[in-house]
Amino acid sequence: MSIDRINDLREKLKEFVAERDWDQFHSPKNLAMGLNIESAELMEIFLWMPDEESYHLNGAKLDNFKEELGDIYIYLIHLAEKYGLDLIDCAEQKLMQNAAKYPAEKVKGSSKKYNEYSQE
Amino acid sequence: MSIDRINDLREKLKEFVAERDWDQFHSPKNLAMGLNIESAELMEIFLWMPDEESYHLNGAKLDNFKEELGDIYIYLIHLAEKYGLDLIDCAEQKLMQNAAKYPAEKVKGSSKKYNEYSQE
Amino acid sequence: MSIDRINDLREKLKEFVAERDWDQFHSPKNLAMGLNIESAELMEIFLWMPDEESYHLNGAKLDNFKEELGDIYIYLIHLAEKYGLDLIDCAEQKLMQNAAKYPAEKVKGSSKKYNEYSQE
Amino acid sequence: MSIDRINDLREKLKEFVAERDWDQFHSPKNLAMGLNIESAELMEIFLWMPDEESYHLNGAKLDNFKEELGDIYIYLIHLAEKYGLDLIDCAEQKLMQNAAKYPAEKVKGSSKKYNEYSQE
Repeated sequence: MSIDRINDLREKLKEFVAERDWDQFHSPKNLAMGLNIESAELMEIFLWMPDEESYHLNGAKLDNFKEELGDIYIYLIHLAEKYGLDLIDCAEQKLMQNAAKYPAEKVKGSSKKYNEYSQE
Repeated sequence: MSIDRINDLREKLKEFVAERDWDQFHSPKNLAMGLNIESAELMEIFLWMPDEESYHLNGAKLDNFKEELGDIYIYLIHLAEKYGLDLIDCAEQKLMQNAAKYPAEKVKGSSKKYNEYSQE
Repeated sequence: MSIDRINDLREKLKEFVAERDWDQFHSPKNLAMGLNIESAELMEIFLWMPDEESYHLNGAKLDNFKEELGDIYIYLIHLAEKYGLDLIDCAEQKLMQNAAKYPAEKVKGSSKKYNEYSQE
Repeated sequence: MSIDRINDLREKLKEFVAERDWDQFHSPKNLAMGLNIESAELMEIFLWMPDEESYHLNGAKLDNFKEELGDIYIYLIHLAEKYGLDLIDCAEQKLMQNAAKYPAEKVKGSSKKYNEYSQE
């Protein structure tokens, strides 16, 4: 995954939107709605499924999973672009915050702690 | 954004999870739920906000936006990892499907067409 | 809307589930996922739509809206049932909390205030 | 749960909104966003929780569950009101559609069938 591949993808996305003159619909508010809808479609793949089964998708379900993953990543890139943000920077900063919030020695392996913490 | 930065991030994420022994909670089903919850938190920033205002976040709201973007990207990386998928591949494939589904000459600039098409 | 109609509906829902032996899949966790998926489907009706247009659905979109509304209400009844809760009680209690949290004289007509408050 | 209690609740909700002059923010599009956000907050209670545990909430989590249930029901009533719809009617119609779509003798007790059907 190189800098060229990501820049390539971002350029293709811009072109796709420009060719269709769809930028007018792409307010951050609307993009956030689209992101939620695609996230729900991804989650629907796992609805009613026992937890363990969710580790083993295949065939049509795996294809569907890839498509939803792609859709969500596309929305994420559009949203970051609107504010000139770098997704990796955002993730790294959040990771550092999480590391401070959930010290390994305090939360290690405990589902109960994990629950409590993640509710905050 | 180079291959090194992405690989770096993925490694750090694996380490973060391993140090806390949290992989046991990270079934794809649970991760998909987490993704939806973070997406809703991002959307909440724009709730009740006029469309135009959503282009101009700042201060605490912009900081919050970055955090949610980071969280969502982290979940996305975790989910892709579970199936050994490459997010850029997924996005590129989806983009090609979208290009075939929404030919520029048919849907250009039309909100009505855009609406109809996106409902499918 | 009488007590008989609501009790009727609840009885029909129980019967529907029992006839299919689906109660085994209806954990509160799974029902909460289903609720989110249906809520996203309802929201999809309004995606890319200007705010004002959302007041005027008709034809297939209005039919779709009714179906999603029905689905969400069904999930809500199932969820309340799991804990023997009365939906009207829950709503009345929440309304009282909201009244205390957002005193009319402080928040009246102010989108800014409304925004800030609803973020809390 | 009588006709009087529901009418009472609907009247109180109207009054609450009117006193704050918030109707201007309550477009169906915005209400649908709010509904999704509250649904995600309800789902968050169950995040990382084993399925079986979700049957047994208590203390602060049960209180939180009630509040989210109340919030979602309030949004649902607001949305129905915007189009003069009766929630019970919507649910009954959807239930009849579901009964036709999932004949008991075909789908009974089968998680696999249930999965397949619910994806449609």
